[in-house]
Amino acid sequence: MRNLLFLLSFLPLGLLAQEVTSPNGQVKVTFELDGTRPAYHMTYKGQEVTRRSHLGLELKKDKHASKGMEETDLMDGFRVTSTERASFDETWQPVWGEWKNIRNHYNELLVNLRQDAQNRNIAIRFRVYDDGMGLRYEFPQQADLNYFLISEEKTEFAMTADHTAYWIPGDYDTQEYEHVISRMSQIREKFDAAWTENSSQTQFSKTGVQTALQLKTDGGLYINIHEAACVDYPTMHLDLNDQTWVFTSHLTPDASGVKGYIQTPFSTPWRTIIVSDDARDILASSLTLNLNEPCVLDDTSWIHPTKYCGVWWEMIAGGKPWAYTDELPSVDIEKTDYTKVKPNGTHPANTANVKRYIDFAAKNGLQEVLVEGWNIGWEDWFGHYKDNVFDFVTPYPDFDVDELNRYAHEKGVKLMMHHETSGAIPNYDRRMDEAYAFMNRYGYDAVKSGYVGDVLPRGEYHYSQTSNQHYLRAIKKAADHHIMVNAHEASRPTGLCRTYPNWVGNESARGTEYEAFGGSAPYHTVILPFTRLIGGPMDYTPGILETQLSTWCDNDSWVHTTLVGQLALYVTMYSPLQMAADLPEHYERYNDAFQFIRDVAADWDDSRYLEAEPAQYVTVARKAKTTDNWFVGGKCDQQGHTTKLTLDFLDQGRKYECTLYQDAKDAHYEHNPKAYVISKKVVKQGDKFTIKQAPGGGFALSLIAK
Amino acid sequence: MRNLLFLLSFLPLGLLAQEVTSPNGQVKVTFELDGTRPAYHMTYKGQEVTRRSHLGLELKKDKHASKGMEETDLMDGFRVTSTERASFDETWQPVWGEWKNIRNHYNELLVNLRQDAQNRNIAIRFRVYDDGMGLRYEFPQQADLNYFLISEEKTEFAMTADHTAYWIPGDYDTQEYEHVISRMSQIREKFDAAWTENSSQTQFSKTGVQTALQLKTDGGLYINIHEAACVDYPTMHLDLNDQTWVFTSHLTPDASGVKGYIQTPFSTPWRTIIVSDDARDILASSLTLNLNEPCVLDDTSWIHPTKYCGVWWEMIAGGKPWAYTDELPSVDIEKTDYTKVKPNGTHPANTANVKRYIDFAAKNGLQEVLVEGWNIGWEDWFGHYKDNVFDFVTPYPDFDVDELNRYAHEKGVKLMMHHETSGAIPNYDRRMDEAYAFMNRYGYDAVKSGYVGDVLPRGEYHYSQTSNQHYLRAIKKAADHHIMVNAHEASRPTGLCRTYPNWVGNESARGTEYEAFGGSAPYHTVILPFTRLIGGPMDYTPGILETQLSTWCDNDSWVHTTLVGQLALYVTMYSPLQMAADLPEHYERYNDAFQFIRDVAADWDDSRYLEAEPAQYVTVARKAKTTDNWFVGGKCDQQGHTTKLTLDFLDQGRKYECTLYQDAKDAHYEHNPKAYVISKKVVKQGDKFTIKQAPGGGFALSLIAK
Repeated sequence: MRNLLFLLSFLPLGLLAQEVTSPNGQVKVTFELDGTRPAYHMTYKGQEVTRRSHLGLELKKDKHASKGMEETDLMDGFRVTSTERASFDETWQPVWGEWKNIRNHYNELLVNLRQDAQNRNIAIRFRVYDDGMGLRYEFPQQADLNYFLISEEKTEFAMTADHTAYWIPGDYDTQEYEHVISRMSQIREKFDAAWTENSSQTQFSKTGVQTALQLKTDGGLYINIHEAACVDYPTMHLDLNDQTWVFTSHLTPDASGVKGYIQTPFSTPWRTIIVSDDARDILASSLTLNLNEPCVLDDTSWIHPTKYCGVWWEMIAGGKPWAYTDELPSVDIEKTDYTKVKPNGTHPANTANVKRYIDFAAKNGLQEVLVEGWNIGWEDWFGHYKDNVFDFVTPYPDFDVDELNRYAHEKGVKLMMHHETSGAIPNYDRRMDEAYAFMNRYGYDAVKSGYVGDVLPRGEYHYSQTSNQHYLRAIKKAADHHIMVNAHEASRPTGLCRTYPNWVGNESARGTEYEAFGGSAPYHTVILPFTRLIGGPMDYTPGILETQLSTWCDNDSWVHTTLVGQLALYVTMYSPLQMAADLPEHYERYNDAFQFIRDVAADWDDSRYLEAEPAQYVTVARKAKTTDNWFVGGKCDQQGHTTKLTLDFLDQGRKYECTLYQDAKDAHYEHNPKAYVISKKVVKQGDKFTIKQAPGGGFALSLIAK
Repeated sequence: MRNLLFLLSFLPLGLLAQEVTSPNGQVKVTFELDGTRPAYHMTYKGQEVTRRSHLGLELKKDKHASKGMEETDLMDGFRVTSTERASFDETWQPVWGEWKNIRNHYNELLVNLRQDAQNRNIAIRFRVYDDGMGLRYEFPQQADLNYFLISEEKTEFAMTADHTAYWIPGDYDTQEYEHVISRMSQIREKFDAAWTENSSQTQFSKTGVQTALQLKTDGGLYINIHEAACVDYPTMHLDLNDQTWVFTSHLTPDASGVKGYIQTPFSTPWRTIIVSDDARDILASSLTLNLNEPCVLDDTSWIHPTKYCGVWWEMIAGGKPWAYTDELPSVDIEKTDYTKVKPNGTHPANTANVKRYIDFAAKNGLQEVLVEGWNIGWEDWFGHYKDNVFDFVTPYPDFDVDELNRYAHEKGVKLMMHHETSGAIPNYDRRMDEAYAFMNRYGYDAVKSGYVGDVLPRGEYHYSQTSNQHYLRAIKKAADHHIMVNAHEASRPTGLCRTYPNWVGNESARGTEYEAFGGSAPYHTVILPFTRLIGGPMDYTPGILETQLSTWCDNDSWVHTTLVGQLALYVTMYSPLQMAADLPEHYERYNDAFQFIRDVAADWDDSRYLEAEPAQYVTVARKAKTTDNWFVGGKCDQQGHTTKLTLDFLDQGRKYECTLYQDAKDAHYEHNPKAYVISKKVVKQGDKFTIKQAPGGGFALSLIAK
């Protein structure tokens, strides 16, 4: 279905407020000039979502801007020269995703603005959907608006009251924080406690928070603020004025404090608000994807959702080393001769161990095997602003790259590449071509990249404009090489996987690794779908069935879910990349539960959010791609939750072989995490279940069409 | 000849001063501890060159340094643990140069120092030559000295009095200044006037000056301070304490103010002092080259000294555009479609015009033709911190890269590539491989690179550690592709062309282009050999025979030498790259004078500095490589100069066809610059000439063995 209808209306000068409503009329956005300053406000079913919120940008006074840009801002002095309206309704098919078809249906208002004194024209474009809106700034190319530098974007989101916020601290470098649930007014007092240590972090305000920010009003309205299509621009944070309840955009600067270097024509990312009185709508929204450009890749046949395992958890949780030797205080990858050093003997990325994982993957239908620590440089990789830290092409002596790829391919499995950059972005930029060519040569088609530690160039941040340009450059280059990318420690996603579907994953939040670093709160995975996942899929690496790490290693951390809770994540945390992150021997130990991971799909034709409340529970049913099979996952917080499930999404008259994985009656994420019950029966449309999820637990259900 | 003699002497604790003298005994350097602080002083023939001068480094207190580095400096708290002495005498052959053989003859003192409190060992190495000395810091790899950050190097050069200095202002970004000749005490008062505008410049101190710094004592001692082998380190400036006459090293910082990120083992560049009571010895010194590592390239057969012409002066002086069109306010090289724009019609890098230059080069024995403005992006290349500014591989529609290379090669000529980066170092780093491969494909073997404007990454400087790493990376990559590099606007050289002889040139000073921007002082080219050229050759681009630009274009600048003065520069300003920079039609107009440029060599078996005084005159005789022909050049300042020349360097009993190009009697760089006399005769060893050089003039003499 494709239906484009443009209603253009060029209006005369001296405009009053301009209103634009969503296709069904329930969302309304109004643009107006406050004096000479642009502003908007927004309602949902007649309720105020934002009060009058100003729009504008402060410019840096700098010689690198074009003449005329040096002394003035893009904040006020505007008049409306014209407005244009349009409607759009199109259904498109993602290369991978939660739905086979996604409808992009909005009404649009474009407001053309002019600063007469500076002879400059800009525009603000609003797209209003039934579940929210996006707005962005547009800067046409013109003689007096050619190059400019942004010192700050001042986009306001003026809240109506002291809502409940599900927030993490604003940071230029990491999102790996535990969420805090508090009133907006409590952000300041809770900020320092929320600021837990990370390998790279930069604070900018005690009322600074990250997006996607989930809010809930006392009246039961769910408001979600984020951005879409962040291209050639720094990542946006929000800074709260806790006297007025106004969040204002706060961009990530570069080394010299500048936030953006703009060459016109240019459009900023979309600033988005998703809104509903039903929390399920927030999760089911495609607004972020819809505000991104369509896929630009001609051929996407090489992109495939993937289940994988990896040589990883035994290092993260088990303390085994990425490094090959313990002998070297520091290395120079150009000079260090690894054939002359003593191996530590415990380095897991060795040929024999990797073959064990390949065998495991082949036996269990996992398509790929990630291997970390395969390449030289790990003795000395972190924390020193080391530029020439990895070359991405030289294996350790104990990793036979040729033989392992041959062995894997023979078994129908691929190795997944690992490119840790240690934040040395320039080094990766220089070596990317060669690194991807190396992957092509050996038959790798996916890479997990990493940006641990402070980024280079020195003074830049993970979320600076320059860094964001790099992440996308890597995606584009990888696409040229038919390589899928899963970027860890990069900026949180903003839906760019629609445009570049080889961008199959990001980390950009506190992942499963934190279960080995003291644990994450049980509610963590039932907030993430409302926050981190709004921008795109997360490589959360679930599936830790041996939740008590001390049973097999010296780590006294334990996973803050039940075993069944881990299974549920394969459905509740949507991602086209799903890792079976635990050790092969643990999956053998819990082989009956592991069956769900074997069975579950990683790509979907349909998704139905059955129940949801931020930080409490999420239950979703998904129909596996090109099949009639459904998988249902439910995950809850530390309180436990009872799900009343009706199988109304099944085909009428059809029978399904149902396997239910549920927490045992006395299961508890802390005291009794591995108590589970698996039951099978044949079901049909309309059948009902009442499923009790243990504290920190969940459930998983597979429905195989007969 | 190779003669290595190591005299090792491990001395006990509690040392007194350690002295090391040059092979002939005339230079003496003494190391001592001033309390617990390292220091040295130096004499020449018993005269003090430097008073007690302290050595040390201040460290940045930063989490990126190794543990233990955070709170302490490498300034004091030292004791001497041992010293080692050695002598070295070797004669080596440069791939190209002023001499066929260069003798590297020194005595060495290595002082091993220990900070007991910090459990750290460093060393200071002195190499003492008959014409000066070098010292450097060495940091062995060790548990407690692994990574550290330098906040400042504090190497002192304590002068004995208020010497005359030939200086340019200290700047992190450019050396394109006119020299000032003043007492050291006058630097502060003359600084602001010396600080002329440049496209990128950063001041750090009103008593800051650049190296090589030439000094002259009232007693007639010439002292030259510079550095050798600047690798993985920022460029050094000098900051004068004008109360004490102490110059202290001042390194170029990065965006965050850090000056160097060091991983041990590491050695700093050499800090050098060349000294003599005869100014000719400063010019004849090979100390800078000798302190660099030997050539690391296995095959150097593809490296060749080159005379070239180029599509350049008609833009620089004549105002013709690098850009293809005047239509675009800004361009995006990925998107702009140049086939759809209107050409400006005056763009000189077009196929027909370049063929004219190729014909000219072929006819006159010039090996290469530089073409600037051949590639897309010039409409919009400068001043906006634009990263993606050039791609280095896409010609403008009017430049037929295939046909032009074919045409050139057919005539025995090569095109010389031009890579202007606009300071966007990361962009060049990313594209270098492809750019050099493009050159290989079409048969280019040399590139002029440029770094005009503020460098990226933002906040870095042209002379930062990161930038210096880039310049050398480019050289190494180019060597892999058998490409010679001539880097403009890069850091001033420090003799690295010995190690990487494909580094055939640098600009790094005020070149001939300034003759089109208002002119340079007549004494400029008789100071440069004492300053800029100490580190390596400069692509000065001489040969502007039509010194009065207004005769052919709208530029009212004029060259501040006589016509003959321009000829002299091919001999006095040593470089393996020599441009005939003027327009072909001007060389036709002065075809008899142009004969010298046709004849003169660009590579030498021998060089004899016959007379020299900084800022007054330089006369040198050179024997052309693998021939018995000699060329003599004399250049003087605005006062004029009379040279009494004895041809005692010629072979005994042999006759030479001599052509003398001299200023006419009434010649004057301002009033009558193009008045010259050419005379021929046959000469032999011992013949004498008295040659009057006009104000701003010079002479040139070719001696072709019969």
